Amino acid sequence: MRHVPRLGLTSRAAIVGPGIHCPLSITHTFAGNPLDRGDAQRRDPKWLEEAARAPESRFLPMWQLNVLVQDASGPRLGWLSPTEVERLQIRVPPVFLGLADGVAHFAIDVSQLGDPAHELDLDETFRFQESRTAAGQLESAEAGILAQSRSQVDWHRRHQFCSVCGARTEQERGGHVRKCGDCGAEHFPRTDPVAIMLISDSERCLLGQSRGRLARTGFYSALAGFLDQGECIEEAVRREVREEAGIQVGEVRYHSSQPWPFPSSLMIGCHGQAITTDIHIDSAEMADVRWFEREEVLRALRGEHADLRVPGAMAIAHHLIKAWANGEVTW
Amino acid sequence: MRHVPRLGLTSRAAIVGPGIHCPLSITHTFAGNPLDRGDAQRRDPKWLEEAARAPESRFLPMWQLNVLVQDASGPRLGWLSPTEVERLQIRVPPVFLGLADGVAHFAIDVSQLGDPAHELDLDETFRFQESRTAAGQLESAEAGILAQSRSQVDWHRRHQFCSVCGARTEQERGGHVRKCGDCGAEHFPRTDPVAIMLISDSERCLLGQSRGRLARTGFYSALAGFLDQGECIEEAVRREVREEAGIQVGEVRYHSSQPWPFPSSLMIGCHGQAITTDIHIDSAEMADVRWFEREEVLRALRGEHADLRVPGAMAIAHHLIKAWANGEVTW
Repeated sequence: MRHVPRLGLTSRAAIVGPGIHCPLSITHTFAGNPLDRGDAQRRDPKWLEEAARAPESRFLPMWQLNVLVQDASGPRLGWLSPTEVERLQIRVPPVFLGLADGVAHFAIDVSQLGDPAHELDLDETFRFQESRTAAGQLESAEAGILAQSRSQVDWHRRHQFCSVCGARTEQERGGHVRKCGDCGAEHFPRTDPVAIMLISDSERCLLGQSRGRLARTGFYSALAGFLDQGECIEEAVRREVREEAGIQVGEVRYHSSQPWPFPSSLMIGCHGQAITTDIHIDSAEMADVRWFEREEVLRALRGEHADLRVPGAMAIAHHLIKAWANGEVTW
Repeated sequence: MRHVPRLGLTSRAAIVGPGIHCPLSITHTFAGNPLDRGDAQRRDPKWLEEAARAPESRFLPMWQLNVLVQDASGPRLGWLSPTEVERLQIRVPPVFLGLADGVAHFAIDVSQLGDPAHELDLDETFRFQESRTAAGQLESAEAGILAQSRSQVDWHRRHQFCSVCGARTEQERGGHVRKCGDCGAEHFPRTDPVAIMLISDSERCLLGQSRGRLARTGFYSALAGFLDQGECIEEAVRREVREEAGIQVGEVRYHSSQPWPFPSSLMIGCHGQAITTDIHIDSAEMADVRWFEREEVLRALRGEHADLRVPGAMAIAHHLIKAWANGEVTW
C-alpha cells in the first residue's frame, strides 16, 4: 500500500504562516488552503516540468469533477505519485496547485478514463466522491485544496477554445492562463463574485426559498445573486434584495467571504438593514420570501424548529444568520 | 439639434431609491449607476424588441471602447435615438442596460463604422472619448452607466465564440447571456474580483510601484492582485502582499468596493495589518515597494510631496490611503 502522508497544516495559523496570530473569527469551508500557490515557480516552465516528475510530488485526480478520497481514520484527499499518474497516460496537462513544505502539488483531470477506480488499481479504501459531499467530511486544509482543484479543473474543461476567435487554446503557466494558438488571446481563470446577504431590521430577518434545488419544504436561506458588471458590492446587495423581495436596503456591512467551487464563485457575505417592510416576491426566481423573528431563527439554528430549516455550517449563509440571531448585528 | 435630456438622478439617494437615506460614506467613481437593470424585462424578448424601437429609448454608442460624449455645460454621455441608430445599420445587437423613469437605455457597439463621427452626422459638440478620461469628467450617475456599458460591450466583443466547443455564440436576454448555437452552453458576463489593500502598522503604510504602466517616477499605490480560484478575500490579501512584498499580514478589514471597467474588475478595498517589517520584493511584478511615514503620505495626498505621488480620488486606492492617513485605521 502506498504511503500517502497527511497534510499537517490544519490549524488556522497555517493560513497566514507558522507562528503568526490571525484574528479571523471564522474560517469558512473551502477557505484555509495551506498551499503556497508558487507564483514565481509557475512562471518557469522548466521548473514545472521537473516538479511534475519529482518522486515526492503529489497529484490529486478528479474524474468528472469528483475527487479521489481515501477512507482511513476519517476521509482524506487521495493523492497519486508521478509514477502512478504517468501510467494512466492522461492527455490533459496537470494543473499546478502550489507547494507545501517544498513539495509540488498538482490536480489532474482523469475524466478520459472509463473506469477510473479500476485503471488506477487502488485498494478499496479509495473512491471518487462528489466534491461537495467530500468537502463536508474533509479537514479544513484539504477542503481548501479541493476548492482550488475543482474550480481549476472545471475551468480548463470549459475553456478548451478561444472565446475571441474560436480556435484551440493551450494551458500555460501551470494552468493560470490559457493562450489561443491562433489569435494569441490570453484567458484567465474566472472567479464569479456573488453577494449573499442577511437583511434585517431590529427583530426580524429576511429569508427566502429560491426555485429549483433549494425549494425543499421549510428550507430558507439568505438572499443571494451574482454581481453584475459595473456595480460595487453594496449596489449588488441592494439590487438583488429589491429584485427578489421588493425590500429596500439602507446600510450594508461586509461580514466575511467564502470560495464556493461550484464552479468558481466567491461568496461575499454581508448584513443589510431593511428600510421597508412589504415583501414583493420575484416569482420567477423565488418560491417564497418571508420575515422571521429572531426567536424562530435561533430555534432553527438549533434544529428545533418544526417548520424552518436553515443552511448548515458549511455555507456562509449559516454564519450570516447566526451572527444576526446572536445579536452581533444592530442598526 | 437633437434634444438630449440630462439624467436627473445624480444624488447618492438615487442609488437606493428616491427619498431613502443611505449612509454610504463614499460613492466611488463608476459606482452610482442609477439605472434599474430590468431583471424581469430582459427575460421578455418581445418587450426588449419593442423597447429598442420606442422613440424615447436611448442608445449609448461605443466605438473601439471609446464612448460618445457631448460637451455642453460640462461633458455628458452622448445618447442616440432609435432612429439615429437604425440609420447606422449596425449588425451587433444592442445591450440592454436598464430603465430610468420607464425609459429603456441600451449600449451599442458601433466599432464597425469607419468614421463614426462622420457617419453619425453629429455636430461638433459630440466626440468619442477614451472611457477612463471621460469618467473623470462625467457626473457620478453617468460614470456608473459608462462602467456598465464599457464592461458589457467589451465582454460581448471578446465572447463571440463558445469556450467549450469553439462554435459561434448569440446574445440572449438583452445581453446578460451568450448562448452557443452548437453545444448550447450558456456564458455569462464576467466580473473579476481584485483585492486591493493598504497594509500598515502603527505609523507606516506599504506602497508599491508595479512594473509597466504605473512605473512613473515617484508614483506609488496600494498593492493589488486578482483573486485566485478557491480563495477568500482575506486569503487573497495575505497572499498578494506576501508574494509582492514578502510582508506577512494579520488582520484584514474590508473598507469598500469599486467597479473598474477595464475591462470588468471589482476592486475590493481592504486595510491589512502588517505583522512583519522586512520587505522582499517580487522583482518580476514590482519595481519598488516601500514603507512610508504617515506625515509623508499626508503631504502626498495634498500634492505637496516632491518625491511621492499617490492615486487621485477616482481610484479606490486613494480612499484606502486617505482613510489610513487620517487615522481611521488603528490596529
